[in-house]
Amino acid sequence: MNRIILALTGLMIFIPLPTNAQPGPALMPVPASVKYQEGRLPVKETFSIAVAGHRDGRLTAGIERMARRLESRSGLTLARSLATLPAGASLLIECQGPGQAIPNLSEDESYTLTVTSTQAALRAPTVVGALRGLETFLQLLSGDKGGYFIPAVTIEDRPRFPWRGLMIDIGRHWQPMEVLKRNMDGMAAVKLNVLHLHITEDQGFRIESKKFPKLHQLGSDGNYYTQDQMREIIEYARVRGIRVVPEFDMPGHTTSWFVGHPELASAPGPYQIERKWGIFEPVLDPTNEQLYKVLDGFLGEMAALFPDDYLHIGGDEVEAKHWQENPRIAAFIKEKGLKDNHGLQGYFNRRLLEILIKHKKKMIGWDEIFQPDLPKDIVIHSWRGPESLAAAAQKGYQGILSNGYYIDLMHPTRAHYLNDPIPDNSPLTPEQQKLVLGGEATMWSEWVSPETIDSRIWPRMAAIAERLWSPRQVKDVSDMYRRLANIAVQLEEVGLLHERNQSTMIRRLAGSVTDDSVLLNIKKFIGAVEPVKGYKRGTMQNATQFTPLTRVVDAAVADSQLARSFGELTDHWLYEQNYRQGAVAAEIDRYLNDWIVAAGSVRFASLESPLLAEVEPLADQLQKACKLGIEAALMLRNDAPVPAEWATERLGELDTLAKPAVALELVMIQPIREMVVAVAEKEKRRTMSPDDWKAHVKKSATPKKR
Amino acid sequence: MNRIILALTGLMIFIPLPTNAQPGPALMPVPASVKYQEGRLPVKETFSIAVAGHRDGRLTAGIERMARRLESRSGLTLARSLATLPAGASLLIECQGPGQAIPNLSEDESYTLTVTSTQAALRAPTVVGALRGLETFLQLLSGDKGGYFIPAVTIEDRPRFPWRGLMIDIGRHWQPMEVLKRNMDGMAAVKLNVLHLHITEDQGFRIESKKFPKLHQLGSDGNYYTQDQMREIIEYARVRGIRVVPEFDMPGHTTSWFVGHPELASAPGPYQIERKWGIFEPVLDPTNEQLYKVLDGFLGEMAALFPDDYLHIGGDEVEAKHWQENPRIAAFIKEKGLKDNHGLQGYFNRRLLEILIKHKKKMIGWDEIFQPDLPKDIVIHSWRGPESLAAAAQKGYQGILSNGYYIDLMHPTRAHYLNDPIPDNSPLTPEQQKLVLGGEATMWSEWVSPETIDSRIWPRMAAIAERLWSPRQVKDVSDMYRRLANIAVQLEEVGLLHERNQSTMIRRLAGSVTDDSVLLNIKKFIGAVEPVKGYKRGTMQNATQFTPLTRVVDAAVADSQLARSFGELTDHWLYEQNYRQGAVAAEIDRYLNDWIVAAGSVRFASLESPLLAEVEPLADQLQKACKLGIEAALMLRNDAPVPAEWATERLGELDTLAKPAVALELVMIQPIREMVVAVAEKEKRRTMSPDDWKAHVKKSATPKKR
Repeated sequence: MNRIILALTGLMIFIPLPTNAQPGPALMPVPASVKYQEGRLPVKETFSIAVAGHRDGRLTAGIERMARRLESRSGLTLARSLATLPAGASLLIECQGPGQAIPNLSEDESYTLTVTSTQAALRAPTVVGALRGLETFLQLLSGDKGGYFIPAVTIEDRPRFPWRGLMIDIGRHWQPMEVLKRNMDGMAAVKLNVLHLHITEDQGFRIESKKFPKLHQLGSDGNYYTQDQMREIIEYARVRGIRVVPEFDMPGHTTSWFVGHPELASAPGPYQIERKWGIFEPVLDPTNEQLYKVLDGFLGEMAALFPDDYLHIGGDEVEAKHWQENPRIAAFIKEKGLKDNHGLQGYFNRRLLEILIKHKKKMIGWDEIFQPDLPKDIVIHSWRGPESLAAAAQKGYQGILSNGYYIDLMHPTRAHYLNDPIPDNSPLTPEQQKLVLGGEATMWSEWVSPETIDSRIWPRMAAIAERLWSPRQVKDVSDMYRRLANIAVQLEEVGLLHERNQSTMIRRLAGSVTDDSVLLNIKKFIGAVEPVKGYKRGTMQNATQFTPLTRVVDAAVADSQLARSFGELTDHWLYEQNYRQGAVAAEIDRYLNDWIVAAGSVRFASLESPLLAEVEPLADQLQKACKLGIEAALMLRNDAPVPAEWATERLGELDTLAKPAVALELVMIQPIREMVVAVAEKEKRRTMSPDDWKAHVKKSATPKKR
Repeated sequence: MNRIILALTGLMIFIPLPTNAQPGPALMPVPASVKYQEGRLPVKETFSIAVAGHRDGRLTAGIERMARRLESRSGLTLARSLATLPAGASLLIECQGPGQAIPNLSEDESYTLTVTSTQAALRAPTVVGALRGLETFLQLLSGDKGGYFIPAVTIEDRPRFPWRGLMIDIGRHWQPMEVLKRNMDGMAAVKLNVLHLHITEDQGFRIESKKFPKLHQLGSDGNYYTQDQMREIIEYARVRGIRVVPEFDMPGHTTSWFVGHPELASAPGPYQIERKWGIFEPVLDPTNEQLYKVLDGFLGEMAALFPDDYLHIGGDEVEAKHWQENPRIAAFIKEKGLKDNHGLQGYFNRRLLEILIKHKKKMIGWDEIFQPDLPKDIVIHSWRGPESLAAAAQKGYQGILSNGYYIDLMHPTRAHYLNDPIPDNSPLTPEQQKLVLGGEATMWSEWVSPETIDSRIWPRMAAIAERLWSPRQVKDVSDMYRRLANIAVQLEEVGLLHERNQSTMIRRLAGSVTDDSVLLNIKKFIGAVEPVKGYKRGTMQNATQFTPLTRVVDAAVADSQLARSFGELTDHWLYEQNYRQGAVAAEIDRYLNDWIVAAGSVRFASLESPLLAEVEPLADQLQKACKLGIEAALMLRNDAPVPAEWATERLGELDTLAKPAVALELVMIQPIREMVVAVAEKEKRRTMSPDDWKAHVKKSATPKKR
């Protein structure tokens, strides 16, 4: 099926696939090589699976999970046991060996998948490669009037980067086991292979320490993982080919440590678990020899618990105030010739490194840990950007990129998708490029609860997974969105709640109003807005760890699909059509009218719901903006004369209407600005090429700065 | 807000509350006594909670859960610690004592709740009473332009029956821990107090036995609760004032026992876990003395694990074939003078009773176990009906009712709601009535998966909870539905997935089609149908324990709200209005047209989704039925002449269109039949009273028998 835009009311508009788009079923990440052939492998009740070559518990469990998902999608009841004769099996899996017992950077994740009309053959050197291939196989499942089938295809696949991660901050907001489990299933579905757990923060110490139990007992409100539970998480990850990299952020971000162990801090205390958000002053005292004994004990314990080669020491955002204020620490800096606070952190890191080496762990930490005398097997985790990564690589250091993958900041998928760990203009030599191991999306958790976290991670995470797995030239944004819509649905299959929890939150927001039509309209209203981006929410709303995250802004999502569809429609009309062509214009009109009605429903339901009532001003703004849009569309269609000052006034109004409120912004205003500009400057279209016209309008419609 | 019917497109029709309806916020179950006063207690950030009198971990945990839910509904951040001064607290909880350490039948669950404009005071003799009152308090939360508040009210409340249960069959389809936990939270929200676990079945033996490990190891496919996990469930229940009553169904329904222990069976075996549904022949051998040694050991182990006073021995649906075919058993019957197979089951039950008495458990079992010589502290669990319950009560036996509460059979809420354990025509004396302890809804699990089970239990279960808690005279069906719509939303708060999983299932069914408008239309289509009722699905679909439950019938729910709304509209128009009054007629027209469009979307999405394509015939039937409805509505409005045979032909067509397919039936056909009858017999309306007219049309529109 080609690209389709479907009207809210059933009208359909077919827009051809972009030329460099991926044909066939929605594969994400796109494999390194895909060649479709004529033919199809039917998937019926007789579908059978056989294993040749290496077979172990991890492989058979993976096959079992795949088979259950195939059943649930197709409604077919498949045989519960593996077929004995490889030749006759519908799906033959040939695996050469187990691969790494504990997933690590050297794991071979490649596979080939050859589907003919009689058999699908999945071949992989390792079990993890086979698991990756099974996910591709599931994504290939197609259906038509003839039933379910897999299209004939030859796929050769391997990842571009060996480190493809998701960081979840369980420190600021606790995330229980089921959140991590379902997210690992989602990760496996898009071939991610690193779950980085940000375990300790000012707001919580989330792991049991048997040696220093006051750390978790006093630092976590009881919300921590026991070592048994963490082993369960690690094993859950391992069977899916996922590494678990633990982070213990030091020497800053350590308030929660000091509730039980104030003697490790640089200022006397006493300390309480931090409840607010920000960068705080409490910091470990690197001059305290006792600290290294504790860290040796604690990190030794953690090194035994977490089997991964790497241990993340954080190292970011160190506030030096308590160091400066402590005369003993100031004297220590002078005495050791450490220059300044950075020198002190460097000293601390060297001591930490000794401890990690003793416990056979490699060090990874945020940009700040980088200093020239570190051994070459450490990894720099860059929140600063590809430049800092490149700088480290030029000095021979490995790195991974998180800058550009901060999914907590609510930027649209396309921005993350086009963010390459090795950009086109990279100064790195091919040899240096190998030092860029990959990237990690960061789910910092100031603004997420177990109810909302999935919608903050997914589906955008799948596009980042593609960036890190697929060849660099795979970067067609509109094709990515086409495929992402399907993958987003498939991700629900493993229990992720990113889609369904929004409807639950909307019902809660509607309070005593339970009518479907009102709920649907509230959903449409929410489709017109997005949470403010970057760190803006923190400037607009006072919140602590205890603040309920059940407002409209929490039900809203980044990169609203409804608003994006509206923008695609206006793009199509403004830049590719004669304005008198009615179908698209009518559809634009319908979006705008629907939003006007939706805003009315928001006001109606607000009568008995104060929690919803806070968006009433935004509902007013939405109605006004839509009316402006309707006016502009009419003028474009009728080629009406444009009064002087018309556009300036309208753009001024739109500037006002675009002002964020209650941490939300109306994202459908930009297309309306473009309509207004197109009206005002319509004469220019006659003199410009289509591309120039588009660029001109988009540029003129961009607000100066708010 | 009064009763409102909201059109799919925004039109509103106000229908006054029925005279005997409950005013104010949606309380369910309705308390024994509710008296609203003038005034309101504001709920703001300063809201505080204090405890006077008895305080323990169970109470403070319950308060904590309530406070978090209050926060999530209101968006308010409340103080995390209890207030120290009772006088100034917004909510004061005075609890006299702990009540029963292990919840039992004698638990006092009463409470009073007095809300004034300055304080809410909740008083209860026990912690469980306080927990019940906290749920009422949460249900009272209201909002308007002035913010959130609790209306001033005096509530005195206590349950009508002490045994108010939900049985979940974890034997046929395994249900993991989170399913039981979230359902217990739902139970607590509507004041249910018994979770009856049907633990062993032909299809699965779901509890770890340390003494006879082959039982669970070979009988469960690995899907069983360890004793530690079961203790976790029991404790989770206890802190919510819920008993856990375990059932080990004997002597039939025991195939899974025999996989590991064929020597306990009446026929030689070997045995395999049963995968099909039905009543099967394998049965324990009551003549085998070894059996009683095993049962003594196993039940002793279970008696120690489950702290409840009662142990359920099942006893239903015993197939005697293997007894009859075994000459040794036949001889035993003769030798002991047991008359027949029933006599043999009676003998078995007496032996079982000795074992239970030894382990200090009271016996409960299904109707079949009843025999006159049993001690008076046993409980008869009636699947046969109030008559069998009454018969037992007349002989002095206690009983609970499940007949009429078989929620797996997909009957509408109203049917369960009006099913009273002690019907109006009960022959029982007041003293005998006390022997009727209450009732249990049964969630037999042939057709439910962890994904769908919540939607099979909720929200209908809440109406049954009201039947068992509230005074018998509370039985206004339309008021129940009004309140249930709100309670259904609130039940999602504790994690139940009954609403949100439907949208997930619809997205899966739609396959590659992800457009909101199509998905919404598929949802409307599903709102026109319901799963076939009773045991009909089993006659229409072949299924085993392995069959995926992801078809349209699994996404459809009993008692479709959309179809019910349509029926309410046609009722209003046909029986309470002049047919020329346009608003309701237009609304009916809109429902019918929407369904015609929805059927088109189903066909569209079916192109690539064979799983959805199976309902295409139903989509055709829906379109045809809607066209007939539009025709009838037009004729009624225009007072058009009615051709001879018109109605007979139309009703004949509707009979054909109402034929179930793929285990679904179009439930919006009945209102259309009524419209057709109203057209044909419109002359009669002039001569009949409104009530007679309604009764006449409804009766004439009831199909003869399909």
